[in-house]
Amino acid sequence: MELKEILDIFLKNDNFTILTHKSPDGDTLGSGFALCYFLRDLGKHANVINSDQLPSRYAFIYEGYRQQEFEEKYVIAVDIADPNLIGSNLLQYQQAGAVDLCIDHHISNRNFAKQTYVDGEACAAAMIIYEILKLSGEKLSDQIAKCLYTGISTDTGCFKYENTTPKAHIFAAELMAYDIDYANINREMFDVKSRGRMEVEQTVISQMKYYFEGRCSMIVLTKKLMSECGVDQSEFDGLASIPLSVEGVDIGITVKERHTDYYKISVRTTDKLNASEFCQQFGGGGHIRAAGCEIKGTLEEVQNKLLDAVERLFG
Amino acid sequence: MELKEILDIFLKNDNFTILTHKSPDGDTLGSGFALCYFLRDLGKHANVINSDQLPSRYAFIYEGYRQQEFEEKYVIAVDIADPNLIGSNLLQYQQAGAVDLCIDHHISNRNFAKQTYVDGEACAAAMIIYEILKLSGEKLSDQIAKCLYTGISTDTGCFKYENTTPKAHIFAAELMAYDIDYANINREMFDVKSRGRMEVEQTVISQMKYYFEGRCSMIVLTKKLMSECGVDQSEFDGLASIPLSVEGVDIGITVKERHTDYYKISVRTTDKLNASEFCQQFGGGGHIRAAGCEIKGTLEEVQNKLLDAVERLFG
Repeated sequence: MELKEILDIFLKNDNFTILTHKSPDGDTLGSGFALCYFLRDLGKHANVINSDQLPSRYAFIYEGYRQQEFEEKYVIAVDIADPNLIGSNLLQYQQAGAVDLCIDHHISNRNFAKQTYVDGEACAAAMIIYEILKLSGEKLSDQIAKCLYTGISTDTGCFKYENTTPKAHIFAAELMAYDIDYANINREMFDVKSRGRMEVEQTVISQMKYYFEGRCSMIVLTKKLMSECGVDQSEFDGLASIPLSVEGVDIGITVKERHTDYYKISVRTTDKLNASEFCQQFGGGGHIRAAGCEIKGTLEEVQNKLLDAVERLFG
Repeated sequence: MELKEILDIFLKNDNFTILTHKSPDGDTLGSGFALCYFLRDLGKHANVINSDQLPSRYAFIYEGYRQQEFEEKYVIAVDIADPNLIGSNLLQYQQAGAVDLCIDHHISNRNFAKQTYVDGEACAAAMIIYEILKLSGEKLSDQIAKCLYTGISTDTGCFKYENTTPKAHIFAAELMAYDIDYANINREMFDVKSRGRMEVEQTVISQMKYYFEGRCSMIVLTKKLMSECGVDQSEFDGLASIPLSVEGVDIGITVKERHTDYYKISVRTTDKLNASEFCQQFGGGGHIRAAGCEIKGTLEEVQNKLLDAVERLFG
């Protein structure tokens, strides 16, 4: 599929439903709403839907947005690699043939839609949406630019991560020509934390353990600790980057209790070690610097298994 | 002065001393070493000097660098707005006429050099150095690209802050064409913290106080607390951004004990409030969202003065 064909689909059809993935992030929402606003600006009918409630931190993306009433005729999924990611409140869209077109940047895309466009080189789905919208030659609104910038910025960790491409920087430069308060967006996306999250981080950091002369660090999130903090479970998301943020650490491990004697492990490494290989020993996998696995046993057994594996690594 | 004239100065002269500012950061070092490597690649003699010891976190900038022996003939200051910033170990360069050329991006530059080039629109001195080096038409080394990228990235908070320009993104895209491990550089610059710093942050966050329904937050760094933490004083630098990082806070205040009954105040605000105006009430000043002042009195008196002023703001 070429981008031009996707633009033609947008132009020839109407009454679009745009699906964004569950536990929505800046890229799925930025991409979905940018596309929706674009279609509406063309005089088309379009809605964005999500299985979950939209987090208020992304309110600037859907500010002033209202759902339209129309008979759905064309369904587009954005940034959704797997039908399961559509979410439990939108089961009807997980059936075969329910989605007409999927636009995604995950190379692992399951090809569940009737037509699929995947660009694994794109660091965000918003990169692809922006390219299609540019092809149209239409003037884009500031609101669309804001959505697209947010998608690119959030999926690259504000241009910090390895997935950041020169093109991501060039698109950011182009989008800054619109009236977007990028500094405020970035502050909200990267610097602001809820008071609950602050407290959770503090607790977790105070209990972090170091091993092998500080080259390995580990945090443990037991159900007890998570309930004692008295905050929403979502405040515990994304803590896995903390162990590796300590100077001198080459492998940071997060052990999270799923059920009794059943733990989910997240591993982050510097370029000196391979997180994916490490997790494969336990039947898991992932990326070179960020991977995961699941291990059964008591907490002590699980920690010992992990530390034995780390010892072999440093051996 | 035009950039072309500066390039001509580089080409016509030899035996350069490049001054970088005290308490060196990524921009002064990135700019200074990029220029030094460029001049050496042209077959010239050049050294970078600094009043302080170079922090090891910037080691990737000066890796393999050795001072050269030569009779100094031309002195260039980079990223230095004021002769005082040259530092106490380089007093000889603070005398009038000691610096031949100053290249800077601070609009507040004191014009202390014989010739000065200031571009207040440039978000980093490295932006200006890069433009001059490009003018030369010479092929730049990967090491030079790494230095320039670091300068731009660190001075913009990894393209996060308001000072980030479209040009900064375009230059970043260009520099990524060289063999630079930008993800690792950014990780070292922005994500990695010493264990001591982690502990200090934890202590400070646990003692943070909230006022006016969470719209104001305050941290207090007493001499007692700073000595109890048992870490180097430098670990306390840059904590002033923490109070404003809490959701809902519009003014974050850091109160740091200088001497008995004498406190240094740092104020950070969202776009809803003016930090500079706030600090002007106490004889201080600064930028719209980041400013400072000094207040005498007991800790309680100082805090009350600040909270009274905040109350008037929210009045």
